[in-house]
Amino acid sequence: MTDPVLELRAILGPKGWLSGIDAEPYQRDWLNRYGVAPLGVARPANTAEVAAVVKLCREAGLAVVPQGGNTGLCGGAVAEQPNAVIVSLSRMAAIGKPDLDSGSIVVEAGVVLAALHEALEPHGLMFPMHLGAEGSARIGGLIGTNAGGSHAFRYGMMQDLVLGLEVVTPDGAVWDGLRAVQKDNAGYQLRKLYCGAEGTLGIVTRAVLRLYPTPRQQAGALLVMPDFAAAVSFGAFLRGEAGEFLTGLEFFCDVGLELALRHVPDLAYQLETRGDVYLLVELASGSARVPLDDILASALEWGMEQGLVLDGALATSGAHRAQFWRLREEQPEGQRLEGEQLKHDISVPPGAIARFIEAGARICQDILPGVRINPFGHLGDGNIHYNLSPPEGRVDFDGKAGRFAEALSALATQTGGSFAAEHGLGRADPQGTMNPGVLVRSTL
Amino acid sequence: MTDPVLELRAILGPKGWLSGIDAEPYQRDWLNRYGVAPLGVARPANTAEVAAVVKLCREAGLAVVPQGGNTGLCGGAVAEQPNAVIVSLSRMAAIGKPDLDSGSIVVEAGVVLAALHEALEPHGLMFPMHLGAEGSARIGGLIGTNAGGSHAFRYGMMQDLVLGLEVVTPDGAVWDGLRAVQKDNAGYQLRKLYCGAEGTLGIVTRAVLRLYPTPRQQAGALLVMPDFAAAVSFGAFLRGEAGEFLTGLEFFCDVGLELALRHVPDLAYQLETRGDVYLLVELASGSARVPLDDILASALEWGMEQGLVLDGALATSGAHRAQFWRLREEQPEGQRLEGEQLKHDISVPPGAIARFIEAGARICQDILPGVRINPFGHLGDGNIHYNLSPPEGRVDFDGKAGRFAEALSALATQTGGSFAAEHGLGRADPQGTMNPGVLVRSTL
Repeated sequence: MTDPVLELRAILGPKGWLSGIDAEPYQRDWLNRYGVAPLGVARPANTAEVAAVVKLCREAGLAVVPQGGNTGLCGGAVAEQPNAVIVSLSRMAAIGKPDLDSGSIVVEAGVVLAALHEALEPHGLMFPMHLGAEGSARIGGLIGTNAGGSHAFRYGMMQDLVLGLEVVTPDGAVWDGLRAVQKDNAGYQLRKLYCGAEGTLGIVTRAVLRLYPTPRQQAGALLVMPDFAAAVSFGAFLRGEAGEFLTGLEFFCDVGLELALRHVPDLAYQLETRGDVYLLVELASGSARVPLDDILASALEWGMEQGLVLDGALATSGAHRAQFWRLREEQPEGQRLEGEQLKHDISVPPGAIARFIEAGARICQDILPGVRINPFGHLGDGNIHYNLSPPEGRVDFDGKAGRFAEALSALATQTGGSFAAEHGLGRADPQGTMNPGVLVRSTL
Repeated sequence: MTDPVLELRAILGPKGWLSGIDAEPYQRDWLNRYGVAPLGVARPANTAEVAAVVKLCREAGLAVVPQGGNTGLCGGAVAEQPNAVIVSLSRMAAIGKPDLDSGSIVVEAGVVLAALHEALEPHGLMFPMHLGAEGSARIGGLIGTNAGGSHAFRYGMMQDLVLGLEVVTPDGAVWDGLRAVQKDNAGYQLRKLYCGAEGTLGIVTRAVLRLYPTPRQQAGALLVMPDFAAAVSFGAFLRGEAGEFLTGLEFFCDVGLELALRHVPDLAYQLETRGDVYLLVELASGSARVPLDDILASALEWGMEQGLVLDGALATSGAHRAQFWRLREEQPEGQRLEGEQLKHDISVPPGAIARFIEAGARICQDILPGVRINPFGHLGDGNIHYNLSPPEGRVDFDGKAGRFAEALSALATQTGGSFAAEHGLGRADPQGTMNPGVLVRSTL
């Protein structure tokens, strides 16, 4: 057999193959915890090139690791062993014309989420997936990890927003499932199975995504709450009052706010009161005839009367709403700049959030007294991003990372939840050709 | 080996095994087109009994065919070969206590959909799946076929409404996936894969279903339209105006209305005008502060000014709304009583509905001049139930059933759609222990 690298070069052309120093930017994950140097990085220009690369790697016994924006937190998009080819979809970033009547669009897997948002703006339609990494996360990675984000409890996760897929399967064949219909039961729901499969069942090359009409009006508020129980009670009330308009219902803690304010320039907290817990509320309606601001103001008033809300402010503009959201979205960056950290992505039934937070705090303080706990996440669907920083004055976790992960995973399961909510499993959990070490570990 | 029937009797007890004349009610499908006499009907009382039956059948080489309400249209719940055991879930009909804070409920697979609706009424929560057969369709069958129904474009299909599942796998093991969280990416999305697998991957025994708050107000209207193009245009306008309130957007034709009025007692059409096409519109909101009736009345007025709506009436009460819906929901019964019929369950991108209907009519009239075409379905998601009756005066389709199916399937694919939308594939499409002949045909 000839040198597979020469063959890969021949398939991909000079722009399509990176090795040595050129491959370094692709090697490590965002948190710099995972990834060894790969044989090289393939940057195919189209589906046929992806298929040819997969076929060749299979024949040559090389592992294939698909990579999107490489914003993942679990190492699913970087190599675990040296004899691997990273397949970056970044050159496949074409955005089709939206089908306005059917509410759908065909995109290549390398499209950056924010670029899709922008491309849709003039058309009155939107793709309702929003998350902190949207400026760099790519559609293929969002599908591979079955991403959720802040709007998932209203609009669903990627598996709910993907109508059709084109996938290069592990044998290098192209599976054409690019149908633009919601109701499609002709065979098994493979399009759903590929969502969250993290590249182990193939490489997603194109997708048909479901679009929604852009809301005609939005409203938002930042609320300061005394504790988690109050946040949960107020959230339940709001789900009743604001019904189908509720688009975002995010919580965060003062620990995380402090870390963001400390490390992120230009970030300002504008309310007078600080609390233990904060809620970000966002309402949106497709109809101009819904009194959104009134509904939100009344709910806020009720919460203050009940002692559930200490302080709060309604956003007066889209820019003002964006300022509120930055307080939450800069927290991962703030905590990263603080030093070492442990991240857990947990999901519990929404009614059990307060119980999980209380029990989790006791468990973590037992393991390492003074550990700083920074949970934030999505109150609407019970998804908690449970992040730890060492106690003030310490730089590490005293070798106890595994104990935290085990204890929190056990607590999540015991609470009826999951220890892998929306970030995927990646290499954070204990393999073949397709993305070895991710999701499934075998002895290949 | 001992007689498997004796062993099945021992597992199931006297109430749990039916054979001979007692098994007859389970033998044929609703349309009386599929089903041979099974070895017998197992009626297990719990998951352990289901598992024991599957294990025994596997060892004895008997096919296992799970059956819910047996309301399916594609023969997926009846036996294709004599050496089969029908497993009826009808005795497993327990409904758990709803988790009000989390918006979820655990139910056994034999629960009838309408019984679930009724059980939820006092709790202010609802399960948003509605279809004609809800008085007899059971949860397990709805999951097996990944049912859709009239509210799917707002709330999703079964795969979107199932949070967790318990499944007896083909080897008789019990897979416990009964988690009550939306965001769960710990491994492949098996819960989604089981939806629509029609019993070929195992028997669903219990499910965690997602609940929504009961709307505080509803509004509905029946509209008479000159043609399909007008119905599609008005539908697009309404999706813009009524945004997230739009819960139902159903179309039907005068052919189907006539069949229902002819054969179904107590059914009355109360408007003065008849048209070629009709729309049923339903709006619902969780907030009391949305002017639903005004929104619907203004849309109706606009439609009349534009010449898209010939006549229309707003429902004045829930009972009135139900009368409107019966005009659509009694059509399958009306057409069944008219005589022989052909049914096709097609899905196209919503924007392509009018095009499909026009092209389909030309094709069908070419195949058999005078054939009566009765398409009805869901304008919001492009799902067309495309039903044929023979020309007036004829009792059959002149042996052309296969040609209709082939031509319509080709047209659906060509239009970017699917020939199996929400009824499943069953035995309508060209086998194993698990539901042989359904979805996957092998040479076992």
